[in-house]
Amino acid sequence: MSPASDLLAQTLAQPDFHPRLPQQRRLYEAAKAAIHQQLLGAGNKLPSSRDLARDLGISRNTVIAAFEQLGVEGYVTSALGSGTYVADLQAHSASMRGGFHPQQDGAGEDGAEVAPLSRRGQELTVFAAGPRYEIQPFAPGDADFSSFPFKLWQRLQNRVWREARADLLDYGQSGGYLPLRQAITEYLRISRSVKVSVEQVMVTAGTQHSLDLCAQLLADPGDTAWVEDPCYWGARRVFQANDLLLHPITVDGDGMALEPADLATNPRLIYVTPSHQYPTGAVMSLARRRELLDVALTKNAWILEDDYDSEFRYTGRPLAALQGLDTGDRVVYMGTFSKVLYPGIKIGYVVAPPQLVDAFKSALYDLQRPGQLMVQAALADFIALGHFTTHIRKIRQIYGARREMLRRTLVHQLGTHAHGVTISSEESGLHLVVELPAHVDDVALEKLAAESGIQVKALSNYYLAPPVRRGLLVGYAYCTPEKIAYYGRLLASVILSGVRR
Amino acid sequence: MSPASDLLAQTLAQPDFHPRLPQQRRLYEAAKAAIHQQLLGAGNKLPSSRDLARDLGISRNTVIAAFEQLGVEGYVTSALGSGTYVADLQAHSASMRGGFHPQQDGAGEDGAEVAPLSRRGQELTVFAAGPRYEIQPFAPGDADFSSFPFKLWQRLQNRVWREARADLLDYGQSGGYLPLRQAITEYLRISRSVKVSVEQVMVTAGTQHSLDLCAQLLADPGDTAWVEDPCYWGARRVFQANDLLLHPITVDGDGMALEPADLATNPRLIYVTPSHQYPTGAVMSLARRRELLDVALTKNAWILEDDYDSEFRYTGRPLAALQGLDTGDRVVYMGTFSKVLYPGIKIGYVVAPPQLVDAFKSALYDLQRPGQLMVQAALADFIALGHFTTHIRKIRQIYGARREMLRRTLVHQLGTHAHGVTISSEESGLHLVVELPAHVDDVALEKLAAESGIQVKALSNYYLAPPVRRGLLVGYAYCTPEKIAYYGRLLASVILSGVRR
Repeated sequence: MSPASDLLAQTLAQPDFHPRLPQQRRLYEAAKAAIHQQLLGAGNKLPSSRDLARDLGISRNTVIAAFEQLGVEGYVTSALGSGTYVADLQAHSASMRGGFHPQQDGAGEDGAEVAPLSRRGQELTVFAAGPRYEIQPFAPGDADFSSFPFKLWQRLQNRVWREARADLLDYGQSGGYLPLRQAITEYLRISRSVKVSVEQVMVTAGTQHSLDLCAQLLADPGDTAWVEDPCYWGARRVFQANDLLLHPITVDGDGMALEPADLATNPRLIYVTPSHQYPTGAVMSLARRRELLDVALTKNAWILEDDYDSEFRYTGRPLAALQGLDTGDRVVYMGTFSKVLYPGIKIGYVVAPPQLVDAFKSALYDLQRPGQLMVQAALADFIALGHFTTHIRKIRQIYGARREMLRRTLVHQLGTHAHGVTISSEESGLHLVVELPAHVDDVALEKLAAESGIQVKALSNYYLAPPVRRGLLVGYAYCTPEKIAYYGRLLASVILSGVRR
Repeated sequence: MSPASDLLAQTLAQPDFHPRLPQQRRLYEAAKAAIHQQLLGAGNKLPSSRDLARDLGISRNTVIAAFEQLGVEGYVTSALGSGTYVADLQAHSASMRGGFHPQQDGAGEDGAEVAPLSRRGQELTVFAAGPRYEIQPFAPGDADFSSFPFKLWQRLQNRVWREARADLLDYGQSGGYLPLRQAITEYLRISRSVKVSVEQVMVTAGTQHSLDLCAQLLADPGDTAWVEDPCYWGARRVFQANDLLLHPITVDGDGMALEPADLATNPRLIYVTPSHQYPTGAVMSLARRRELLDVALTKNAWILEDDYDSEFRYTGRPLAALQGLDTGDRVVYMGTFSKVLYPGIKIGYVVAPPQLVDAFKSALYDLQRPGQLMVQAALADFIALGHFTTHIRKIRQIYGARREMLRRTLVHQLGTHAHGVTISSEESGLHLVVELPAHVDDVALEKLAAESGIQVKALSNYYLAPPVRRGLLVGYAYCTPEKIAYYGRLLASVILSGVRR
């Protein structure tokens, strides 16, 4: 056993060294600690992942993942084929400190440090959600894409590549691969009651890019955008990056609830998730939908309907889209394949109202130069051959069962309304909301849960205005039943400790 | 033969019906004309692509491509598995006219029509480059991606998919797939003399997205961006979409040439293509590079170096990147795999200066949610196994030969400096510039060439300020030697007719 293996093995053998974290995370923490304490010095070569896995008695994939994370964060460096070395942190931080030379003479006035980022850049960075380095139990928003049919997809993909059509290597012109746009059109008509012809459908690289396109085409910097409060972070980020003024509108059990004070403002964009409000899960009532369409018409605003996970309804028929009610052509409808298939597929779509089709098509091409037609072609086949419907049915069943199990576990531990705790009973989506009494600090509870290796999210953090409700978002789609049983009990005890405090 | 086949066959048999256009385009034009003249009425079913191909004696792929284009533009509609029908143009245009109801009472004042797009949205749409529906001879910027090694790529891709790593289906965290970032780091150090460590490299969905990220992080709406004049359209579009003020700086034979009037402005961003200025091909001199770095430091501006096609240098060593000279950490360097591999791969990269790494990483994740790790993994193998270098060598040879052939054809027809025409002798890139005397209307010449099925571009159209030089951009990378010989002579005669007029 090499000295480095030995050192790491000793650390990992300590019973109080992050006992609840997964192996990969423990190894990462052990190595990071050793590097910070200079027990592993700069330039030291680490054992190979194969040797280290053997020495520690863990899987090689675990070691590789830990190494990757260390590499990502700059603790180690590796050269192709020649091993992994401890990085020189001193040199790195010195260059980080010394690298930026704000101008200090002449025009620079009183030598004040000039911010390297723009104003909006600073806002974006300060409030960054930050990447998830690994998915921990109950992280909301994550689907279990390990159930993705790898072999089938590979077969379809190979069929497309065997044809070797050079035109599918080009940029996606005119809104994307036509057969995919046709398949999306059919799907939206039948499953979502969207009023759509194929010309209106444009394939994008996912919802973030759909939103960016809408913001750039339909709003100018300084314009107002109405957002739901609480709201999906990703949408907020894109609007901020476009320098829009965000006007939060409180969400209740029937979705976005407009007040007279809201109606006094003049939005250019209205961002809503009517089928399944993110993150509360509320379904917008028919009356509210009609009202919103009227308001958009009166105020000449565009409604951006983000129908991100309507496929996950575990009982009853899926709800029709807001767009289907729109007689004034004020709704830009958008969806994604990231939730049903896998996040990294990066294929979403926009349905533009007829009068915006030409502008969207030309801006999509000019600004984003869409591509990945090979993937689009494989996906078109996947849908046309019925696999999409089968896959939705399969994961809907899996997620429905997991949801039910999580709910039962929590209710069993917490009671239905005991301690002022309410567990959402809405039968859809990829997470449920545990609502907490107003005095409970849900952000503190999120931190407490994280110490037990549970990645729930505090509802407060999704608010732009002072939070009206407190709670935790608990994702279940990614968790196996065993994990739900174990971590569910753990989470209940965390919640109880917070509520009783 | 069906009546529709018969009708189209008759049109195509006319000798003066677009004789120089490719088959696909002729079929498209014939069908469009028949639909406009209502010889093919709304609701009529078209023959299947198989039957039509047989009836007209052309390939089925040609028919399919023509149908696709007709579908894209709304002339025909098709339902999965049930054939293609002529669309109801009347209904369509009526809905286009009637679809948008600007508010005409109350708050709307004097009933003036409210623009559906934002101000920047209108600018973007009015000046849209518009998609290319097909690549015609001499279209600049296009590489011959039909030489892409389909089989090899498929093998590498299958290797990645066989491993069925669920983590590669997730979003790309922390800047992209680490082995790809390492491969890019090595490549940039060795081939481009870029000063870079792997933490600085972030994988994006291509240069448009790299530029958008830079603009959003580093500049606020209303800030000034210096751009080369003439300039790459795509970059201009992104800056416009971000509501930046574009300040054009004239390009001469040594690249961007700063004048005192330019130095009186305060840019936040400086966009340059120093290795091979787009579109003139000028290489920025060392003196100019040093000057620009100094100016950026003094003015606290960021230089965005777009090194889009430095791989295509046919003689001598590739030039070092500007970033390699930068001692003040003012350069954000970016590149793409779209030119060397294929456009639709949508993988590019940004090298951020050390002090911006964290901000770029978090904004990249928050705003764009990068993905396609499977493709990134296949690409990492492609590079690590040496195929990338081999492929560059191969296409460099092909393109170099084509360039030489085009040059010789044009010189043979036009003479070296006859009629005031100069053909650029710069040995790099994917197009050459035919410079024209100042009195020649290059835009008219572009139109004239288009009538002969040649897609050259007028240099004037790349200018923001009144054009200083006139000329045509002639792409050769996509053209086979036969096409170059044929269309080269044709182009020379078009040019002569324009010069002599």
